[in-house]
Amino acid sequence: MIRVTRSYPFSAAHVLARSDWSEQRNREVYGRCANPAGHGHNYLLEVTLRGEVDPATGRLVPLERLDRLVRTLILDRLDHRFLNRDLPEFEHEVPTAENIARFAWRALKGETSPAVLDRVRLVETSNNSVVYCEETE
Amino acid sequence: MIRVTRSYPFSAAHVLARSDWSEQRNREVYGRCANPAGHGHNYLLEVTLRGEVDPATGRLVPLERLDRLVRTLILDRLDHRFLNRDLPEFEHEVPTAENIARFAWRALKGETSPAVLDRVRLVETSNNSVVYCEETE
Amino acid sequence: MIRVTRSYPFSAAHVLARSDWSEQRNREVYGRCANPAGHGHNYLLEVTLRGEVDPATGRLVPLERLDRLVRTLILDRLDHRFLNRDLPEFEHEVPTAENIARFAWRALKGETSPAVLDRVRLVETSNNSVVYCEETE
Amino acid sequence: MIRVTRSYPFSAAHVLARSDWSEQRNREVYGRCANPAGHGHNYLLEVTLRGEVDPATGRLVPLERLDRLVRTLILDRLDHRFLNRDLPEFEHEVPTAENIARFAWRALKGETSPAVLDRVRLVETSNNSVVYCEETE
Amino acid sequence: MIRVTRSYPFSAAHVLARSDWSEQRNREVYGRCANPAGHGHNYLLEVTLRGEVDPATGRLVPLERLDRLVRTLILDRLDHRFLNRDLPEFEHEVPTAENIARFAWRALKGETSPAVLDRVRLVETSNNSVVYCEETE
Amino acid sequence: MIRVTRSYPFSAAHVLARSDWSEQRNREVYGRCANPAGHGHNYLLEVTLRGEVDPATGRLVPLERLDRLVRTLILDRLDHRFLNRDLPEFEHEVPTAENIARFAWRALKGETSPAVLDRVRLVETSNNSVVYCEETE
Repeated sequence: MIRVTRSYPFSAAHVLARSDWSEQRNREVYGRCANPAGHGHNYLLEVTLRGEVDPATGRLVPLERLDRLVRTLILDRLDHRFLNRDLPEFEHEVPTAENIARFAWRALKGETSPAVLDRVRLVETSNNSVVYCEETE
Repeated sequence: MIRVTRSYPFSAAHVLARSDWSEQRNREVYGRCANPAGHGHNYLLEVTLRGEVDPATGRLVPLERLDRLVRTLILDRLDHRFLNRDLPEFEHEVPTAENIARFAWRALKGETSPAVLDRVRLVETSNNSVVYCEETE
Repeated sequence: MIRVTRSYPFSAAHVLARSDWSEQRNREVYGRCANPAGHGHNYLLEVTLRGEVDPATGRLVPLERLDRLVRTLILDRLDHRFLNRDLPEFEHEVPTAENIARFAWRALKGETSPAVLDRVRLVETSNNSVVYCEETE
Repeated sequence: MIRVTRSYPFSAAHVLARSDWSEQRNREVYGRCANPAGHGHNYLLEVTLRGEVDPATGRLVPLERLDRLVRTLILDRLDHRFLNRDLPEFEHEVPTAENIARFAWRALKGETSPAVLDRVRLVETSNNSVVYCEETE
Repeated sequence: MIRVTRSYPFSAAHVLARSDWSEQRNREVYGRCANPAGHGHNYLLEVTLRGEVDPATGRLVPLERLDRLVRTLILDRLDHRFLNRDLPEFEHEVPTAENIARFAWRALKGETSPAVLDRVRLVETSNNSVVYCEETE
Repeated sequence: MIRVTRSYPFSAAHVLARSDWSEQRNREVYGRCANPAGHGHNYLLEVTLRGEVDPATGRLVPLERLDRLVRTLILDRLDHRFLNRDLPEFEHEVPTAENIARFAWRALKGETSPAVLDRVRLVETSNNSVVYCEETE
């Protein structure tokens, strides 16, 4: 079995805070990440597919097709954006690394056939990353 | 002669746009970086001092003192902030990497005696960085 | 399911040698790592937890709490130490990367509820790392 | 359970193209990687073994033995080579990252006892990598 | 004074050997890099310009223009190529890192006005890099 | 003019403390680095030479010769050592990054002809490095 991983950098701003919580409570939960005007990151999104290598091409999937999918479904929406303000998905959901990774998973799920979406990894800073996957696809 | 470099990561959001220019002109000059709601980066600030090694300690400067200076004069103001909105310095000046580096230089200039501030490097993304220095200190 | 990984650097010295073996046998097994006076590394400890995202916060666990646990239970004991000399755990057990990773696993096991300790990774040099996990927690 | 990973860099050239396809079809499938004269990469091969730590040595396997195996069975054949031209294995099989990883897996399979070959990872560029493993060894 | 550095990755193959030297002499001078069929690298080209920041834009140069220059004058010629075979410049000159860096310098020299080309750095492997510059531009 | 930089990793232990100072004073000056039993680092030594490219070979210097010099004069003495205990040079001089870099400079000075030793950089941790050079060689 083979897993192929492609990495996609993007830059975005966010605030970690719930509008229905007080500023004090947001600071207790999210620390400096709750600063109201927002801050940002150079995110790295790693998409991993799994499956069998096509014996004709020696590849799991055409990388150009995967790149196009990720660009259209994810990067065009997240890159150079303020997540809480530019995306309806993050109007009521705090754009933590966990929730951004799930956003990416849901965008790609079922789109990569015949390869299977194996996992999505989001690196937020050099010491903070998450991996999201669902058992059944 | 010795140069000592310390690195300090911070996360911030910014918009590259002038309020006295049209959105179209801002896009022509700054591309996607002009997206109005903003985006962000994991910045890395590298501060380089130069001078002679103290023969008693074997060090150019006490690193703890340099760390305290950088934290107080720079990081406490930039880290987890939206630069255009949270800092008066960037109300009328676009927070490009060039201008942020100059901000850091000016904050530290003359504060590191007996060592001399040699240069300030700001890494904005893995393929974009600037080095700022002034000839006379 | 989500996995969250946090990275923690620390610096330590060690010797790879058993006191009940001859110096020659230690050199045969451990090579230059058996040099008697010791050497050291910039270690990177990566702690991975898994579980379900809290729908209220969008996080698996409060990162501040995890950081505090790792600092108290692991870093305060390993960072800037000579492992064979400063830690009773490594008086009779050679502080290989494998054994240091197990030390970290045992220190954190059962402490991260409701999240589950998924694995502990220890990077010793840029070309040497280990991952430790136990099936049942 | 412990997994130990060692990394081995090597440099090689390749062309992604099938001799029984037209140049146009090769370009459609492999893009610029089909340029006829070839191009190359700094590859990084990561070999992961798993098993139980030897209580006497505190190690999964003697690293020197693993290094020797990888050097003899893999690096001596791939490093500083043009894969399509210097290796019979890639005369009829396109040396994609997927196929190079499988080549490495097959070279090491069954050679690492008592440790089990867990997976082989091949990093081709900073945004492209594959992981190869077979369920039963 | 400000220096701005942009990084550009490319992949290429080469052979280090002179056609007017015997294979033995080439091996003595270039080691494994003289293997006749060739090998390759993921190169990283760093271009550094210097000058004064434009007070209107806060930038030394429009990065999009620099990117276009580097793509047209350098990357379109080097990326995914076998340097000795695809480029007339390296027909009689061995494509060492030193000579590739000089090639890049000469391609950009005088093209970056009003900014001055400060230096060109070529990273060939993680432990091998060169910096090329000429005093007068 | 060309500068060629080669990188050499090594692992060593050290203590930052003067034997003629009290433990308290050492802690005030060196912080946790004064822990008496010692700690260690994965150091990276970068050696930079400058000069003119040899038109026959396209190289500044034969890299194999530079590697041999650095191995013999520096790495064989520092790698896998406890600097304060294994090296007479660091019996009375605290092995700070500054002093280790000067040690490397002095070891190589005058040995690299016809190329000139330009600078020596020592990376101690990911956020701490020094560059040592002397004006006249």
